[in-house]
Amino acid sequence: MSQPKAPKVTGEFKQKHLISIADLAKTEIEYLLQTAKAFAHAEKLGQSTPILQGKTVVNLFFENSTRTRFSFEVATRRLAGSTLNFAAQSSSLTKGETLIDTAKNLEAMRPHALVVRHSSAGSPVTLSRAVGTAVVNAGDGFHEHPTQALLDCYTMQEKLGSLAGKRVVILGDIAHSRVARSNIYCLQKLGASVAVCGPPTLLPPKPEALGVDYAYRPEALLKDADVVMALRVQLERQNRMQIPSIAEYSSVWGLNLERFSLMKKTALVLHPGPVNRGVEMDPEVADSPNSVILDQVANGVVVRMAVLAAICNGPGLEKWLTDGGYRG
Amino acid sequence: MSQPKAPKVTGEFKQKHLISIADLAKTEIEYLLQTAKAFAHAEKLGQSTPILQGKTVVNLFFENSTRTRFSFEVATRRLAGSTLNFAAQSSSLTKGETLIDTAKNLEAMRPHALVVRHSSAGSPVTLSRAVGTAVVNAGDGFHEHPTQALLDCYTMQEKLGSLAGKRVVILGDIAHSRVARSNIYCLQKLGASVAVCGPPTLLPPKPEALGVDYAYRPEALLKDADVVMALRVQLERQNRMQIPSIAEYSSVWGLNLERFSLMKKTALVLHPGPVNRGVEMDPEVADSPNSVILDQVANGVVVRMAVLAAICNGPGLEKWLTDGGYRG
Amino acid sequence: MSQPKAPKVTGEFKQKHLISIADLAKTEIEYLLQTAKAFAHAEKLGQSTPILQGKTVVNLFFENSTRTRFSFEVATRRLAGSTLNFAAQSSSLTKGETLIDTAKNLEAMRPHALVVRHSSAGSPVTLSRAVGTAVVNAGDGFHEHPTQALLDCYTMQEKLGSLAGKRVVILGDIAHSRVARSNIYCLQKLGASVAVCGPPTLLPPKPEALGVDYAYRPEALLKDADVVMALRVQLERQNRMQIPSIAEYSSVWGLNLERFSLMKKTALVLHPGPVNRGVEMDPEVADSPNSVILDQVANGVVVRMAVLAAICNGPGLEKWLTDGGYRG
Repeated sequence: MSQPKAPKVTGEFKQKHLISIADLAKTEIEYLLQTAKAFAHAEKLGQSTPILQGKTVVNLFFENSTRTRFSFEVATRRLAGSTLNFAAQSSSLTKGETLIDTAKNLEAMRPHALVVRHSSAGSPVTLSRAVGTAVVNAGDGFHEHPTQALLDCYTMQEKLGSLAGKRVVILGDIAHSRVARSNIYCLQKLGASVAVCGPPTLLPPKPEALGVDYAYRPEALLKDADVVMALRVQLERQNRMQIPSIAEYSSVWGLNLERFSLMKKTALVLHPGPVNRGVEMDPEVADSPNSVILDQVANGVVVRMAVLAAICNGPGLEKWLTDGGYRG
Repeated sequence: MSQPKAPKVTGEFKQKHLISIADLAKTEIEYLLQTAKAFAHAEKLGQSTPILQGKTVVNLFFENSTRTRFSFEVATRRLAGSTLNFAAQSSSLTKGETLIDTAKNLEAMRPHALVVRHSSAGSPVTLSRAVGTAVVNAGDGFHEHPTQALLDCYTMQEKLGSLAGKRVVILGDIAHSRVARSNIYCLQKLGASVAVCGPPTLLPPKPEALGVDYAYRPEALLKDADVVMALRVQLERQNRMQIPSIAEYSSVWGLNLERFSLMKKTALVLHPGPVNRGVEMDPEVADSPNSVILDQVANGVVVRMAVLAAICNGPGLEKWLTDGGYRG
Repeated sequence: MSQPKAPKVTGEFKQKHLISIADLAKTEIEYLLQTAKAFAHAEKLGQSTPILQGKTVVNLFFENSTRTRFSFEVATRRLAGSTLNFAAQSSSLTKGETLIDTAKNLEAMRPHALVVRHSSAGSPVTLSRAVGTAVVNAGDGFHEHPTQALLDCYTMQEKLGSLAGKRVVILGDIAHSRVARSNIYCLQKLGASVAVCGPPTLLPPKPEALGVDYAYRPEALLKDADVVMALRVQLERQNRMQIPSIAEYSSVWGLNLERFSLMKKTALVLHPGPVNRGVEMDPEVADSPNSVILDQVANGVVVRMAVLAAICNGPGLEKWLTDGGYRG
């Protein structure tokens, strides 16, 4: 019985931080995605990956998040690193400490990376200028969520191969979505074309400025899509009158069985989770064979392993790739 | 100086999950208790027990709990495994994620066990059907708390030897106690007889259906007891009029010195903790030589080590037992 | 290229617990500070320090604290130990468990140290009498915060050499500050003289009883100071009328550029953090070259490593010091 062939890793990652997909060259994105694939391959073979042995990753989360924090924690541990969690509510931020003061103080204890989630766009880049520690953006306001886009593209590649020429439709609140923004950049760099769709109040003022097509109704877009990504409806926006009623949203933009039937038989369904079942997506669609929602979660771990390894210990990662036959 | 003889382990554990004591064969219970004893023995000799090396246990707690979560964490670490804590309030459950969605997402990150505490009876079994990961019930509503019963029986055996023919009296809110329920099943399977006692409103409608004796006043039961287990009074029930006043409870059902003096000199006093001192038990009783309340806590660690090792790495445990001379 | 000479460690640490600086002999303080220096030296050389391998430190925090808990966690991990965090709000304390019951229960799981922060002065000493586990005081009410004083003195020594004959001015709410109290004891034992300054309502009734000079206005004290330590203003005290308005505090006692200009060119500025910028200290001073505020944070880790190593594994520490050439 022959083992699966080791995937090859090309390119390199030249950034000190991971703030946004917009900053990355195509070759850097490919390097991270291929490295993630190498980690998945190694896991299948039972190879260990102690690239962060003796290193500490601080998860600095100013917004609640189950899966993202967990995913970074699991990724760090699979690399034999250790994690420290800092949740804003249990901290001296309640004593009025500023974001930068907090980060400088954490930095003084010499962690190897700060994984930051914050409700204000730009917080991670501000931090990265203030501290010497490497910063990984785990979602900042309406700006970017780069590891989400990487894991989404990893998942699409896993099922579809190269994304060049593929068509991806993103459905929902595009204007306020860091997931949409990071995915648009990432998909375009990898050669895919993107269309966005949602209520007029939830599309950006000029969608074409992002290089995407758009429509207010999903039907026409769905039939050509290789991938449909439904975004989470932020139910609390309803009260602020930024979205119509939940019932109206669901009936016009929700990915129900009727709209699902318009899609290609092989098209993929993605969602960044957690799904509001019956709102932006019906359970039958979320649980259909086309849905790769749980693959996204699983792939999030190897993608974050790639990011953390590249950021915290590039030479160690390079050696591991070379020794494992993933290079050249 | 001769070392203490290695305790022998018989039987085997055939379950994938640990949901309830009701599910277990007597030989499975004995296997877990004897394995726990082997771990205690190994600890005394300074032997290491790295049976969960490289494995991750997720503590998924939807109810607050100091000692149970801690105990599972300590148990996991003594087995060289790593733990991830998920507390409901800091999670995306506040975003409306369902229990099963949460578990499926955690599962996608491939932990080796989910230790679940939840206020709804049946949550762990629901989870165990929805996910592939092994599930350990750390207390579900009024249903079961199997590791508590195992540690209680371990503690009784440690002091009394075999429980066959022993008499155990459980005092308090039997109707709403998962501790009582799991203990009743476990004790009966190990050959003990059980009597329960409490205010009529806090006994199950038909106690005899559980195979136990019962009385509304403790005095008559206490004199024959080998073990008296007082349950914690849930003070908040008072407002719901399910119990009489605290003062009345304490005066009629509290284990005070007067009632304690009715017991055999060698009878054990147990409590699942934390004790409301002066309510269900007086401090003089909780701190008496008959009290094994802190033994229960200490034994909880080795019992949970046995459960986690059996569930997450049965073959590894078997090898460790054999290599250590605990088998055969 | 020659390596920096290994710092020498003299004396020994004879305490089981670390409750207060008042309890320590000068030689014990020196032992801890020199051991901390040895750890800093080892870190620079890339030497590992696995003195707490297999040992568990429980952080038992009844008050919120970012940096102190983090610092203890990082210190424990650098010594290869593992940490368990217990935060009061997520515990069964909400079920009415007493402090001592909690500690006894934690103790039954056999950790190697309890690091305790509590709002009541005397809690750590009470605990240390109730449990067999070693207790480290991480701040108790208005009493002491011994590791803070050790890290402050370490930072001063690092910049100034011996503290004998040095003059330290502490500015702020002396009466309610465990940081001030521990520093006064520590500095005096190391031969420094201390002056305190603040609004009359925030000085102790008889400052001279502490062996310190005092003044209500800072100007006269500043010019002779080798070190000025500004304490954090507890903004919430304003409402209790214990301090004048924040504006008045800042204008009379705040360390602004004008007062800073009265100080010696070489004088150090310390603050236990987090700084209320513009209240007790102006940003220009906090960020000046004289400020060693972030050094304090960094040094906190090595000082806590010394404390934990001495408390949890004195013989292991002694062996490490000897093997590394730090002794004799």
